[in-house]
Amino acid sequence: MELFKEAGGNCLATYCPWGIHEAVEGVFDFGEKNPQLDLEAFLQTAREVGLYVVCRPGPYQYSELVYNGLPLWLGGNYPEIKGINRRGEFLSDPSSCHQISYLHPVFLEKTKVWLEKISPIIAKHTVHKGGAVAFLQPDNELGGIQLWNGGYDYNPETMGFGNAHGRYPKFLIKKYTSIEAINDIYNASFKDITEVDPRNTETVDIPYLMEKDYFEFYCNHMADYFEFLIDVMETNGIDVPFVHNSANPNMNSNFMETVDRLGDKLLIGSDHYYSLNTHWEQNNPTPQYAVKTLFSNEMLRLMGFPPTIFELPGGSLSDWPPITAQDLDACYLSNIALGMKGHNYYIFTGGPNVKGTGTTSDIYDFSAPIGPDGEIRPTYQTVKDFGLFLQKNEWVVEAERECDLQIAMPWEYTRAKNYDVPCTQLEESADSTWTFVREGLMTTSLCADISPAFCNLNSDDIDLGKPLYVPSCSYLERKSQEQVVELLKKGVTIIMGPTLPMLDELFKPCTIIADYLGLSKEFKIHANTKPARATTGGISNIMNTGAVYLSENIPASARVLGHDENSELPFIWEIPQKNGGRFIMFGMRWFHSMNEHSMMMSSLMARCGVDTVVKTTNANVWTALRTVGDKSMLFIMNLYSSPMETEITIRPSWSDSEIELGHFKLPPMSVETRLLSPSKS
Amino acid sequence: MELFKEAGGNCLATYCPWGIHEAVEGVFDFGEKNPQLDLEAFLQTAREVGLYVVCRPGPYQYSELVYNGLPLWLGGNYPEIKGINRRGEFLSDPSSCHQISYLHPVFLEKTKVWLEKISPIIAKHTVHKGGAVAFLQPDNELGGIQLWNGGYDYNPETMGFGNAHGRYPKFLIKKYTSIEAINDIYNASFKDITEVDPRNTETVDIPYLMEKDYFEFYCNHMADYFEFLIDVMETNGIDVPFVHNSANPNMNSNFMETVDRLGDKLLIGSDHYYSLNTHWEQNNPTPQYAVKTLFSNEMLRLMGFPPTIFELPGGSLSDWPPITAQDLDACYLSNIALGMKGHNYYIFTGGPNVKGTGTTSDIYDFSAPIGPDGEIRPTYQTVKDFGLFLQKNEWVVEAERECDLQIAMPWEYTRAKNYDVPCTQLEESADSTWTFVREGLMTTSLCADISPAFCNLNSDDIDLGKPLYVPSCSYLERKSQEQVVELLKKGVTIIMGPTLPMLDELFKPCTIIADYLGLSKEFKIHANTKPARATTGGISNIMNTGAVYLSENIPASARVLGHDENSELPFIWEIPQKNGGRFIMFGMRWFHSMNEHSMMMSSLMARCGVDTVVKTTNANVWTALRTVGDKSMLFIMNLYSSPMETEITIRPSWSDSEIELGHFKLPPMSVETRLLSPSKS
Repeated sequence: MELFKEAGGNCLATYCPWGIHEAVEGVFDFGEKNPQLDLEAFLQTAREVGLYVVCRPGPYQYSELVYNGLPLWLGGNYPEIKGINRRGEFLSDPSSCHQISYLHPVFLEKTKVWLEKISPIIAKHTVHKGGAVAFLQPDNELGGIQLWNGGYDYNPETMGFGNAHGRYPKFLIKKYTSIEAINDIYNASFKDITEVDPRNTETVDIPYLMEKDYFEFYCNHMADYFEFLIDVMETNGIDVPFVHNSANPNMNSNFMETVDRLGDKLLIGSDHYYSLNTHWEQNNPTPQYAVKTLFSNEMLRLMGFPPTIFELPGGSLSDWPPITAQDLDACYLSNIALGMKGHNYYIFTGGPNVKGTGTTSDIYDFSAPIGPDGEIRPTYQTVKDFGLFLQKNEWVVEAERECDLQIAMPWEYTRAKNYDVPCTQLEESADSTWTFVREGLMTTSLCADISPAFCNLNSDDIDLGKPLYVPSCSYLERKSQEQVVELLKKGVTIIMGPTLPMLDELFKPCTIIADYLGLSKEFKIHANTKPARATTGGISNIMNTGAVYLSENIPASARVLGHDENSELPFIWEIPQKNGGRFIMFGMRWFHSMNEHSMMMSSLMARCGVDTVVKTTNANVWTALRTVGDKSMLFIMNLYSSPMETEITIRPSWSDSEIELGHFKLPPMSVETRLLSPSKS
Repeated sequence: MELFKEAGGNCLATYCPWGIHEAVEGVFDFGEKNPQLDLEAFLQTAREVGLYVVCRPGPYQYSELVYNGLPLWLGGNYPEIKGINRRGEFLSDPSSCHQISYLHPVFLEKTKVWLEKISPIIAKHTVHKGGAVAFLQPDNELGGIQLWNGGYDYNPETMGFGNAHGRYPKFLIKKYTSIEAINDIYNASFKDITEVDPRNTETVDIPYLMEKDYFEFYCNHMADYFEFLIDVMETNGIDVPFVHNSANPNMNSNFMETVDRLGDKLLIGSDHYYSLNTHWEQNNPTPQYAVKTLFSNEMLRLMGFPPTIFELPGGSLSDWPPITAQDLDACYLSNIALGMKGHNYYIFTGGPNVKGTGTTSDIYDFSAPIGPDGEIRPTYQTVKDFGLFLQKNEWVVEAERECDLQIAMPWEYTRAKNYDVPCTQLEESADSTWTFVREGLMTTSLCADISPAFCNLNSDDIDLGKPLYVPSCSYLERKSQEQVVELLKKGVTIIMGPTLPMLDELFKPCTIIADYLGLSKEFKIHANTKPARATTGGISNIMNTGAVYLSENIPASARVLGHDENSELPFIWEIPQKNGGRFIMFGMRWFHSMNEHSMMMSSLMARCGVDTVVKTTNANVWTALRTVGDKSMLFIMNLYSSPMETEITIRPSWSDSEIELGHFKLPPMSVETRLLSPSKS
């Protein structure tokens, strides 16, 4: 604890594993028998050292414990609580116990007993009572354990299939009002709500829609689960806020319903690992990791939270590939560069597992900065350097990233990969559009010195003076289509791609944008079926690694900005708006790989009047400028194993002119920072 | 060419794209109209500069050409030649042309016309006629284009399904002699051979066996295709040897039948990229890449060839992620460290594509060391440094890697991932065993300073004095089981894992090894179904990331070396043999992630009397020692983005004692070399 404080830390987190404290049903040990389980002594010590604590009483812990920290008797004595996937299989990995169904009544009953026991103990030590406990974390990485062990839960008892008062039927009726409306939307012929079974998607015309609704229901049931846990804890004396960590950036938006329901009461953050073992994509915090970091932080910001990373790697589950001090340094600084405002290390110090409870060995090491015997490892210095950097530059967490291009975050699309029924009705799928936003649009932007930021399309936080990219697959929510029209009326420059939506979220024809633009009934947009030679702004034959959306019969008022030389059809075209804004159809989906992709984006940004905030001479050096008032911190990232060099010029919001910062030489895997303010420049 | 020669090069390769030389059927241009197509001028120039040439006349080229270098008229005018996968779909990627069926008679007819045209032109310039052409390459990365575009070919006309004289029926009859034998093996009831259709695997009891045979047939048909191409070229004057490149290490063993058929006439090599775009696993030549390099070179060596990498990256298809000089340097040196004996760069110089033929842009750049306008890029120096290193140390390509542990290469298992019908009959599948060999056994060995080498179980090249690991899934060929017994009789130490085979290659009971070991009828081996606490040699609770195979009723003569603390059953046990050898059952499949995995392997090697050739103090620094006579080159690899340090001690075959080499500091992504000989040590 002292080493943590010396490293700039102020808040510890600790698990309180149910399976260890209640190893036999009804028999609890909080240190009475085994001193290793003395939670209160731990909390008191933290208080004495002057640290806050996040307590994580579960039910789930994970942390490489047997049964993920649940008591073994739970699955053994109450088999009915097991999670079951769409195909009727138990959620389990072959060599471990079955996972549970979160809202199963028996599981909730046992959980309540546990939380009623531990909550009063923790409650004695909350900050309001002069103790160390500042936050409680219900459960852990909610939903992850199910996804990784067979899929999301369809336990019929929990979900209430076939029961008019069951959760799922009630959800559907609430959403669509009646079985008639449901039949209309699904193009089905259910006699009543009890016949609707999301496991039998072949009973409806567009299984994908039913699956989409089920996932929305699933995310709602996560919010129910949180409500239950928080209610039990509050009823039993917990008077501090709650926090929770999405298992990874790809799961952040599964918590949208939770945010709607619980608001500020539950601060949602994320976990940002770059490697936990050799099956991870990368050994190091690569640029691909930076993209993930960026979209994750942006999602959390849009949810209304200071982007907090509850599991910023302190080490790794695996000894190999190694977690090195240099890699961690680049990881931490790129997270802060890309918007992080709070963090916790997973883990800061290792230690012995309670006998028989660990799965990795009898020591939980995790390559932590402080080893299980208190040994100080080289990564400790990295943690300390980062802590001191943040102490010295506290203002940076208040600062926001300056941006050049706004991307209307496609919330629903980001979850579409969870719908495990394919959709043949859509030429451009929601998931491929979201993949494109990350691997194409954002990655190209970062290579091309265009700083991207997300915004909520249906909100007021849109900067009307900056171009707005609206990602769209073949369908787009009606209200989003309406909002695009509203923004066009306000003079915003809107770029839309990879296609133009002609359907709403229920896959019914919806041509609000097309109609506003005056596109005729003869207008068509479709992906190229033959190789396209895509040419725009003098850049010929741009490698199109995804699809080129070609438009037919665009209006005479439209100006062609890019076309396919083979078919002679346009894929980029513009319709200037009366009030100075413009609508640009940008019909290409790609993943970033060619310089031509950057040139195409740069040329489009220049056309939209964007003069980018930071300019480099090396596409492989990525930058971020965090500014508050007239003070900025420039982060210059080299996330490669080779040295990189670049010239840099910046134009921060507080400066009228460009500032040349000169030549930078960056060692492999390094992030440099430069403090900038009018007086310093 | 002069720059290439200066960089130590002696042999160029060039494509001769059919689609460009015969853009209109029957109309050829070899420079008569378009000087860019003057192949002979190119060959003459090479001769003048003093370089050899590999000519690649196709039919397929790939090289990011439209239709992969085939003439567009081919697919357009002769749709019957298209490849078709098992599900009846054309082999194609959505935005390009359909791929062809290699042995379709119409495709062969058109190919023959093309080869009859170009072969005499090339033949004028072979080395035997004083010209530059030293090798011909038929086709390119055979099979890859089908796999990547929908799967291997099942074109019914080409394969002859339902035709007693068709290729596939003839193959089956040749393999199994009669329809009765086939019915017996497949447990089916076909009336005659024309009823056997590999697309309908549900007609047999073990679809997996039928699929396995189909893949063997497919590899045979690749050999037929090579025979055809080579025959046409030889008939038309080509008098030099032929070469071919497997698309990647995972495809090397698809050429086993080709090697059996063509022997020395066709030198098979491989392609060793570490990144062609952001969808590749790694941006850099990581340790995972080194493992791939190692098994690929070992496969080529066992096939009887000097391991030759025909496409060692000179650049990358994509501009991003970038190919840097430092990464390439580490890539080249780790390839040579791990057994490479010959190489060619893909590509050395870029240039303009013939108008309308490129898919990446109108320039084929590939981030090559020499740009399309002749500009010299930083990677040129890397190529040159490597060339000069090889010139200076020519003896290194004659040297072989010293090894500590022999692994009996599971040839058939390495292809099992191509059988796209799952196999429920096998507890341990062939593919998971092969995955384990790479990700578990080899990776752990490299981390633990144990130098692994492959050997052919059914050959004489086994070193009887070194331990031999024999990978086995639930089945193992009868002749391999017999060979294991033969080797045990010769006193070899055999380690078998992850399981003990109780079936032969036709999934019939076959307990040759078990019988020889005296295992009783009560003996059982099965994967753990509950979490195991695997403990061996004082190492407790080893994380078992795959499966632990537990044995029941082992004989009294067996010594337990490792057991599961939960079930109390052994997973490692040994039966000493009369002649000094031993049989060790090593029932664990893992992927390398924990230090305990290394400790377990080291402890086992020590038990087998192995004193490893190279010892380091850093598991992340991998080494290779190539020795010929009393001269060795030590390669010390740091394939991370962070610096690494280590002490090194070696015991080369020419030295009776250990030699301390002292302390090494390795920069990120670097490979150091050290020349060693008795006089120098």
